[in-house]
Amino acid sequence: MSNKLWGGRFKKKADPLMEQYTSSIDYDKRLAEFDCLGSIAHAEMLAKCRIISRKDSSRIVYGLKSILNEINQGKFIYKKSTEDVHTAIQERLYRKIGRPAAMLHTARSRNDQVTLDTRMYCKKKTEEIANAVTGLKKSMLGFAKKNINVIVPGFTHLQNAQPVLLAHQVLAYCQMLDRDIERLTDCRKRIDVMPLGSCAISGTGLPVDRKFVAKKLGFSKVSLNSMDAVSDRDYVIEMIFALSIIAMHLSRISEDLIILNSPAFGLLDISDQICTGSSMMPHKKNPDVLELVRGKCGEVYGALVSILTVMKGLPLTYNRDMQQDKEPLFRAIDTVRASLDIMALCFKDLKINKDRAGELLQDETLYATDIMEYLVKKGVALKDAHDAVGRMVRYCIDNKLKISEVPLNELRTFNPGFDKGVYNLLDAKKSVSLKDSLGGTSPKQVRRQVLNA
Amino acid sequence: MSNKLWGGRFKKKADPLMEQYTSSIDYDKRLAEFDCLGSIAHAEMLAKCRIISRKDSSRIVYGLKSILNEINQGKFIYKKSTEDVHTAIQERLYRKIGRPAAMLHTARSRNDQVTLDTRMYCKKKTEEIANAVTGLKKSMLGFAKKNINVIVPGFTHLQNAQPVLLAHQVLAYCQMLDRDIERLTDCRKRIDVMPLGSCAISGTGLPVDRKFVAKKLGFSKVSLNSMDAVSDRDYVIEMIFALSIIAMHLSRISEDLIILNSPAFGLLDISDQICTGSSMMPHKKNPDVLELVRGKCGEVYGALVSILTVMKGLPLTYNRDMQQDKEPLFRAIDTVRASLDIMALCFKDLKINKDRAGELLQDETLYATDIMEYLVKKGVALKDAHDAVGRMVRYCIDNKLKISEVPLNELRTFNPGFDKGVYNLLDAKKSVSLKDSLGGTSPKQVRRQVLNA
Amino acid sequence: MSNKLWGGRFKKKADPLMEQYTSSIDYDKRLAEFDCLGSIAHAEMLAKCRIISRKDSSRIVYGLKSILNEINQGKFIYKKSTEDVHTAIQERLYRKIGRPAAMLHTARSRNDQVTLDTRMYCKKKTEEIANAVTGLKKSMLGFAKKNINVIVPGFTHLQNAQPVLLAHQVLAYCQMLDRDIERLTDCRKRIDVMPLGSCAISGTGLPVDRKFVAKKLGFSKVSLNSMDAVSDRDYVIEMIFALSIIAMHLSRISEDLIILNSPAFGLLDISDQICTGSSMMPHKKNPDVLELVRGKCGEVYGALVSILTVMKGLPLTYNRDMQQDKEPLFRAIDTVRASLDIMALCFKDLKINKDRAGELLQDETLYATDIMEYLVKKGVALKDAHDAVGRMVRYCIDNKLKISEVPLNELRTFNPGFDKGVYNLLDAKKSVSLKDSLGGTSPKQVRRQVLNA
Amino acid sequence: MSNKLWGGRFKKKADPLMEQYTSSIDYDKRLAEFDCLGSIAHAEMLAKCRIISRKDSSRIVYGLKSILNEINQGKFIYKKSTEDVHTAIQERLYRKIGRPAAMLHTARSRNDQVTLDTRMYCKKKTEEIANAVTGLKKSMLGFAKKNINVIVPGFTHLQNAQPVLLAHQVLAYCQMLDRDIERLTDCRKRIDVMPLGSCAISGTGLPVDRKFVAKKLGFSKVSLNSMDAVSDRDYVIEMIFALSIIAMHLSRISEDLIILNSPAFGLLDISDQICTGSSMMPHKKNPDVLELVRGKCGEVYGALVSILTVMKGLPLTYNRDMQQDKEPLFRAIDTVRASLDIMALCFKDLKINKDRAGELLQDETLYATDIMEYLVKKGVALKDAHDAVGRMVRYCIDNKLKISEVPLNELRTFNPGFDKGVYNLLDAKKSVSLKDSLGGTSPKQVRRQVLNA
Repeated sequence: MSNKLWGGRFKKKADPLMEQYTSSIDYDKRLAEFDCLGSIAHAEMLAKCRIISRKDSSRIVYGLKSILNEINQGKFIYKKSTEDVHTAIQERLYRKIGRPAAMLHTARSRNDQVTLDTRMYCKKKTEEIANAVTGLKKSMLGFAKKNINVIVPGFTHLQNAQPVLLAHQVLAYCQMLDRDIERLTDCRKRIDVMPLGSCAISGTGLPVDRKFVAKKLGFSKVSLNSMDAVSDRDYVIEMIFALSIIAMHLSRISEDLIILNSPAFGLLDISDQICTGSSMMPHKKNPDVLELVRGKCGEVYGALVSILTVMKGLPLTYNRDMQQDKEPLFRAIDTVRASLDIMALCFKDLKINKDRAGELLQDETLYATDIMEYLVKKGVALKDAHDAVGRMVRYCIDNKLKISEVPLNELRTFNPGFDKGVYNLLDAKKSVSLKDSLGGTSPKQVRRQVLNA
Repeated sequence: MSNKLWGGRFKKKADPLMEQYTSSIDYDKRLAEFDCLGSIAHAEMLAKCRIISRKDSSRIVYGLKSILNEINQGKFIYKKSTEDVHTAIQERLYRKIGRPAAMLHTARSRNDQVTLDTRMYCKKKTEEIANAVTGLKKSMLGFAKKNINVIVPGFTHLQNAQPVLLAHQVLAYCQMLDRDIERLTDCRKRIDVMPLGSCAISGTGLPVDRKFVAKKLGFSKVSLNSMDAVSDRDYVIEMIFALSIIAMHLSRISEDLIILNSPAFGLLDISDQICTGSSMMPHKKNPDVLELVRGKCGEVYGALVSILTVMKGLPLTYNRDMQQDKEPLFRAIDTVRASLDIMALCFKDLKINKDRAGELLQDETLYATDIMEYLVKKGVALKDAHDAVGRMVRYCIDNKLKISEVPLNELRTFNPGFDKGVYNLLDAKKSVSLKDSLGGTSPKQVRRQVLNA
Repeated sequence: MSNKLWGGRFKKKADPLMEQYTSSIDYDKRLAEFDCLGSIAHAEMLAKCRIISRKDSSRIVYGLKSILNEINQGKFIYKKSTEDVHTAIQERLYRKIGRPAAMLHTARSRNDQVTLDTRMYCKKKTEEIANAVTGLKKSMLGFAKKNINVIVPGFTHLQNAQPVLLAHQVLAYCQMLDRDIERLTDCRKRIDVMPLGSCAISGTGLPVDRKFVAKKLGFSKVSLNSMDAVSDRDYVIEMIFALSIIAMHLSRISEDLIILNSPAFGLLDISDQICTGSSMMPHKKNPDVLELVRGKCGEVYGALVSILTVMKGLPLTYNRDMQQDKEPLFRAIDTVRASLDIMALCFKDLKINKDRAGELLQDETLYATDIMEYLVKKGVALKDAHDAVGRMVRYCIDNKLKISEVPLNELRTFNPGFDKGVYNLLDAKKSVSLKDSLGGTSPKQVRRQVLNA
Repeated sequence: MSNKLWGGRFKKKADPLMEQYTSSIDYDKRLAEFDCLGSIAHAEMLAKCRIISRKDSSRIVYGLKSILNEINQGKFIYKKSTEDVHTAIQERLYRKIGRPAAMLHTARSRNDQVTLDTRMYCKKKTEEIANAVTGLKKSMLGFAKKNINVIVPGFTHLQNAQPVLLAHQVLAYCQMLDRDIERLTDCRKRIDVMPLGSCAISGTGLPVDRKFVAKKLGFSKVSLNSMDAVSDRDYVIEMIFALSIIAMHLSRISEDLIILNSPAFGLLDISDQICTGSSMMPHKKNPDVLELVRGKCGEVYGALVSILTVMKGLPLTYNRDMQQDKEPLFRAIDTVRASLDIMALCFKDLKINKDRAGELLQDETLYATDIMEYLVKKGVALKDAHDAVGRMVRYCIDNKLKISEVPLNELRTFNPGFDKGVYNLLDAKKSVSLKDSLGGTSPKQVRRQVLNA
């Protein structure tokens, strides 16, 4: 039999260059497992609805299960010359069971079949990615717990801002990841829609039972419009988008770690095991994995732009352009998955240099805001307190003094509200303890959240 | 008083070029309303928590309400020389109420203030956009109802596929829009988080009540990590993403309408009132609005890439790069809003050319799939039925015959299953009636959905 | 020996997950040929400059040539476990020639080596792509010549505008392609810069001769700053950009062909050999290759965004993020190359349906602009002529008349300038002949250009 | 007279929402100057070719010059209700000179007019941007000269690599800028093509002289295909691309400066005049302008994606989608221009902290590569030298020793090639002097280039 799912209408043979250009087998073979599962449910439905015989259906199901086995064991051969994974499996089925195979494609089209397979794939992958996100979160929390008392300078604009608990910064990363999981969950709702039975464009005249198929395959909804069902790729785009945000988060975390791991900052020490050297500079120990995590954000953004571009201005319903959804999707999934795992590995052995943290906390301008709030508590208007402390800092810089080196009477020239209590504020532990507002960096707030997470 | 919210620490005066380059007043003035409302809630909280006096708080609230009035009446003057909208309002407050204004910025930073304002703005806009989507849907459904019996050729690959009810195609558009509303709703959950009290980076040492502020402002959640709260722009990105998908949908619908409105297709007639002419070709009536809807998809995609680029690799916590979130956000919102409204207008007066539809339905290959399913119902295996009909179509093309012109005995050479019932299938009404599968294009299915929607 | 180009400084062994995550061998093996050639030139230079002995150099060159042979014959084995192609070749060299291999990496780093290889690759590929563009142009011109007299309606806004020679439209495509070649040529100037000798970041203390290497490898320039040389990927981005514009052009041409090939337009007939069928609709003949060409534009745009994202905000000098330049580059090159070839194939057998063209040219509004210019030649002001013809067209539509059916006395009510000469204008041949302005669609202009091209 | 350039064919009045949605006057008013200049040349050509009378032409030219005057003096009023700048100027011309204005639009369409204006605008702006790039380069070179002897650690992977002259790093930036100017120059060649006379789509039947217009307006080429001329926006995309690369370069330079300006690095001191403070943290001095430069890269990338999206899959010839080219273009130009200027200002007053540079150069691993090359010069194979120095560095780290603290006999356990000369290498001046390869960081190389630039 012909190895195509069409052909009767054609006079001339397909050009090999065309076949090569249009073939998707190289990458859509990833869907093989789901194609079999979908076809099994479809064949069972066809029998149940008496569209094909129970006997034919059984043979088909038997054949498909055997193919599924081959696929799972890596024994299935994907021939380069095949148009796509659906054709490859159909052809194999003919080889295995003969005639009954000719019934399988009843009441469906590749248009609805491919989007069914892709939806099943996406459902599974949203879970895998969500698990990997959770894995990273655990690794981060482990790091936070190990260093639960460590205080570091917090930065805004990469300038010293205020002291924070290292664990507080890690919890900020966890917040990002929590949102990522939420987004995956929301996206999954729109993936979880069963399209089979929409057929080519208009549904079918055969008495199918679409809800049966949905139930068999574990879908919670059935698509409601056949034209939309075959031309909708929102769920692919939305999934790549959710991955783009994860990739962006990872790029930010990487940037933080790379900077804090630089010799000038010297706060972090990344394990030898995930660093690389230089072919020319023998002393080098480079945080390459983190740079790759940061850089691979480009891959995922690119995938998003690819699929958005494909769908722009595409008329209804199915157009072959839509075949271009798979490569970006697969790339985005693989990239993010690998980056999540490597980042989890990184946090596992990450070391914080406590001595260096202590050194950096010697910069007393880190306590300027505490001093301002101390003045506010004494009744000074915020505006005046801000101004007084600003001038005091300027004075210290000009005179190369630490705040602790300025005598009280001089401090009082900036604002009469100063008393000797001010000197007690120049302390990192004191500083973080003060920030006991909800979501603030006080040990109380942070510990509770680390434990809850 | 100085018109900046900072300055004491600085020795040299700011360079005017710097002030111009960093100023955001030109566009963040859109947040003015929300800045006032947020500050009112903040001032009330400060009094409630005894951080400032009731009297000062009342003066502040009074002043802010008066400013809010000016803003709503378009009387507030945004000076180009001001750094941002927060500074502009603070400054105006000084003018209005004097000293108490100096208390307002207690226990907050612009870092948490700006993200509060942006979140309030986004909350409101998700609702406005959702309403505009609903408006478009209504306009589409009106068009569908007016033409509930009209059948047109359905296209895949822009080639004749199978007949569909025009209303079925419109329902496909509605499905897209339904998902758009879902996405906006999901996104809104992550917008609806109150960040104030996160302050600059670490929270505050003053005894604030963040939940009070959240309640006052109608937020359902409070942010849980101060570092994340000031550096998170996920909600902006996600909102622009939801808008990007809407823009993509609109670009597809536009493409459909533009093609169907072309003289060769001749199926649609867009009202004169929303078409434009040519300065050179006096006969022209061009569907420019639809082309702009299609093209403006570029604006929204661009906005998405802008904000994704800004956030890539940005270290924690606040960096001024993040000021670049607003212009893409505003642009995406304005563009999508206007496109939704113009599209609703377009469907309002859209005409379908029924005669032309009838002409196009004369192409009997549109019924080839029905014929195939008819053979299947007679027990022919799908594969064989497909092949037979394919060869029959080829035969018709080669001999310039319509299917109805081929005598039964000749048809039977393609497959013995043919009987004279086949000729009854060459009818558009019959064809759509057959597709009674769930989500199919049968009048029963379609009418129910139009009524439900 | 170790299979890494570094390691002495490290205490712990590399984690396998890290090795897998950072490895680039899967894709940078494409550079193998150029890596050998570059290394051969480098080894010869090292001997010439007496940095290594002539004997060692000869052994190295001998070994590399033998490896090059293996590569070209597809016999070289790229082990998954190797860090990159440079390491793979270095390792193979050790196996082949032993000790002298230990000298090869003198006075260079992978930082300059990888950018050398990539530049050599890009140089070759710009030529290949330019040739493929030329190939497409030839195929198009062949089609234009075969149909040199065919007139079709020209469209603006997909609405009938004015008649044009089909060849004129094809020449428009050729203009796009000419610019594409220009851009590749310009880009090639910035690729053609030899970076080797920049080493890791600062150059080398060894007495190298960089111009010698450049000459050996056929580069016309030598990079002038070592820090820039190892951190510059402008040439990669620019090449992907040039490819993006090509992809965009191809997407536009595809859109044109898809629309003109739709049954409603019916102007083009794409060969069976490059069309595909449907698994459900037996009558289908779909222009899938053109849809893929259009869709694959997304792949190339995505590649551009990927590399732009990678480079955004990257500090000097080399960072591992930059390894992410290769996959987008390779993808963009492969995609555009294949699309150019398939498009050339498409034009080779493309048929124009002359009868249908004739039918479409019956729409006399296509001559409205000619009528307007005829009035202008008679001394009517443009504005008035435009207005008169506009009203006349409106009158024809309202009364379902062709212009030729309106008697002269009625025409004169629109403008007294009308005389019976107007009826001669309602002719496609006449219409195109008139447009003899430079670059216009007159047969004289078009023929000259087809011949010149 | 009507304020539209079309209308006779229309029965119903335009909907106000449509007029607002399609109007471009808000932004295309930027083209006003060029629209006048183009129209003046056009009117002169029309008279020269005897298409209109000398007298009418003179009146038109007189009127347009007067309008040009109004525009340049900021007195021209752009009414919101006008369709576009072309219509606005045409309308004003009627007001000024009456009847002859009705001739001006002879032998042209807005399709060719708008691309003429945009090309003139782009030509001017490429020059302005190139000048601003040159301005930045000068500012950088001034900074380099002031600090010609300053040595700093050079970084790869943000890790200490080798010492470099600060001026060498600045020259790396200058190399980027040189390529930027080259790209602008190349792009300008493709801008510099005169499209007028292509008219709506097919040229004109009137005897125009397109080369005359080109000469008048200073274009060096005339477009050769009317269909391409009105549908080509390559030059807009290419210009935005050239700006994207500039924006990317600026984002990288900003990142460098932000990091080097952080307290931990402490190498740079950015002038108070271009820094900003915090509304909450009184001690803050933040490099906001640099963060904005980095962030604004997103704006330019977004513009590139916008226009690429617009043009994807757009059928020939003119479609209104193309109106969406202008806003991204203007935004990209404004953004890059402002960023170049602010960056030039930044380098003008930039200070390097020489003491801190000296401190950082105390890290003797910076000289590891020099030590390796010293062993190579003594005849040690590169591989062995690399390995020996790597182990030596590891030994120093483990034992908390500086290299200079390791006695020679111990050093010799790593490689017998060591002699006491090795200690002389632990010196930054010595280190940079050694790198005298072409493009290396030796003072000789660097000084020559600073002087040449």
